[in-house]
Amino acid sequence: MRLATVRLADGYETTTVARQEGQELVLLPYADVGALLACGDRWREWAARDGERVPLADASLAPLVPHPNKIVCLGLNYATHIKEMGRPTPTHPTLFAKFDGSLVGARDDIHMPSVSDDLDWEAELGVVIGRPGRRIAREAALDHVAGYTVVNDVTVRDWQHRTREFLSGKTFEATTPVGPLLVTPDELPPGASGLTISCAVDGHVTQKSNTADLLFDVAEIIAYVSTIITLLPGDLICTGTPGGVGAGRDPKVFLRPGQELVTTVEGIGELRNTVVKDQP
Amino acid sequence: MRLATVRLADGYETTTVARQEGQELVLLPYADVGALLACGDRWREWAARDGERVPLADASLAPLVPHPNKIVCLGLNYATHIKEMGRPTPTHPTLFAKFDGSLVGARDDIHMPSVSDDLDWEAELGVVIGRPGRRIAREAALDHVAGYTVVNDVTVRDWQHRTREFLSGKTFEATTPVGPLLVTPDELPPGASGLTISCAVDGHVTQKSNTADLLFDVAEIIAYVSTIITLLPGDLICTGTPGGVGAGRDPKVFLRPGQELVTTVEGIGELRNTVVKDQP
Repeated sequence: MRLATVRLADGYETTTVARQEGQELVLLPYADVGALLACGDRWREWAARDGERVPLADASLAPLVPHPNKIVCLGLNYATHIKEMGRPTPTHPTLFAKFDGSLVGARDDIHMPSVSDDLDWEAELGVVIGRPGRRIAREAALDHVAGYTVVNDVTVRDWQHRTREFLSGKTFEATTPVGPLLVTPDELPPGASGLTISCAVDGHVTQKSNTADLLFDVAEIIAYVSTIITLLPGDLICTGTPGGVGAGRDPKVFLRPGQELVTTVEGIGELRNTVVKDQP
Repeated sequence: MRLATVRLADGYETTTVARQEGQELVLLPYADVGALLACGDRWREWAARDGERVPLADASLAPLVPHPNKIVCLGLNYATHIKEMGRPTPTHPTLFAKFDGSLVGARDDIHMPSVSDDLDWEAELGVVIGRPGRRIAREAALDHVAGYTVVNDVTVRDWQHRTREFLSGKTFEATTPVGPLLVTPDELPPGASGLTISCAVDGHVTQKSNTADLLFDVAEIIAYVSTIITLLPGDLICTGTPGGVGAGRDPKVFLRPGQELVTTVEGIGELRNTVVKDQP
């Protein structure tokens, strides 16, 4: 099953859940995918029902989960990225957060802040939690996944490194595309492992890797995070980026206004976002 | 005006807003202080209305803002704490996040996780945002404050330092008391500056400082954070802790189950929480 959160053309920025059926979307009576998942384990039944149909091509895609209780991100989770950032191989997952104001939809503009020109790409596999849980065993962890999506953890690199904490550079308003769809686990390999993940800027491939190369895989991440805090339906986990970011190059390369960033995870979907410069 | 979020004894963990009037609470028809503030700038009018009265002594205090859109925390914001942690004086605010599952009420137990014994105290001045804003000028920043409260940013010190990101040690479930009340700015000095802040463990004072010693004051913090992202009503900012934490001692001292942690900010209120050990 493939679900999106779409904006209705009602002038109020109302969103609703939609299920993809070929070239159509079936509209469902939930405000967003997070709200659907919060209905409990029977969300798959509710999401399979019929409803008004609209052409997929006309849809305005909102962030897949516009208001997750938590956005948990991993740093340093692919060997190639750890090497280019000059860091040792971690023994534990490096976790940081984003706030939901940083999220944008799969076709929305990415806002380069007025206070920085060092905007960098980070293609990532996204995991959306379906079933809540604390202290989830690794063996049971994938039962808590509602589905997978695509994220680009676009980073304001100079602000990330202003202090020793990443947050400032990771949560600028309207920088992080998430979507286009939630793809349920039955359509993918276990843990969404073995999928090609890539990023391109104006058609030039900048990152290309495989989700099988995650240092901490999806099940391990869920077990680890739920040791700390209860995971809730709709929570978004961004699993880290492979090598090839702009800051890892010599000389460093950053995004420029007008460029198109395309982020793809095989079998899940594609983000296609244009960079626009914010005015002060 | 002094407002709390209290739990009703209805068996459903329902919460409501209450205004303190002497030894009584006036119950108001909003789910929590964050929901009241989300009603817009006229929240002060709504909060001043009459309602059912209950004795203050009987109240069960929930986290003052149980579900903020954002919890933004500052590290390294008092010179005494920067020195004891062996860090250079920062040129920019060090920001990190917590998730709302870490919050507890002003009289609730603090949960020491089963996976650590290194639980440490961090008394802090809390700021609750009233009026939303992005790119707020320093001069206008205090107009965005709904009021002030008390926070103890209780930290799982070994997990904080497992990786280079603080989040893992800062957001364990049910570790962070916030309350007891929101005190509106008219009852306090500008920016809640010049107030004694202190922490005691079983009656022994461990931290004692003054909010005038904040390296980045409340107005500066609001201006800085809103450069990054839109602040929303109910957002909680934890402004950092002064010197005297357990990890800064030689030998290090940590909280033990059964100990009582008392956190006070002059003119605002007191948190009084007992440490309990979680079972695996």
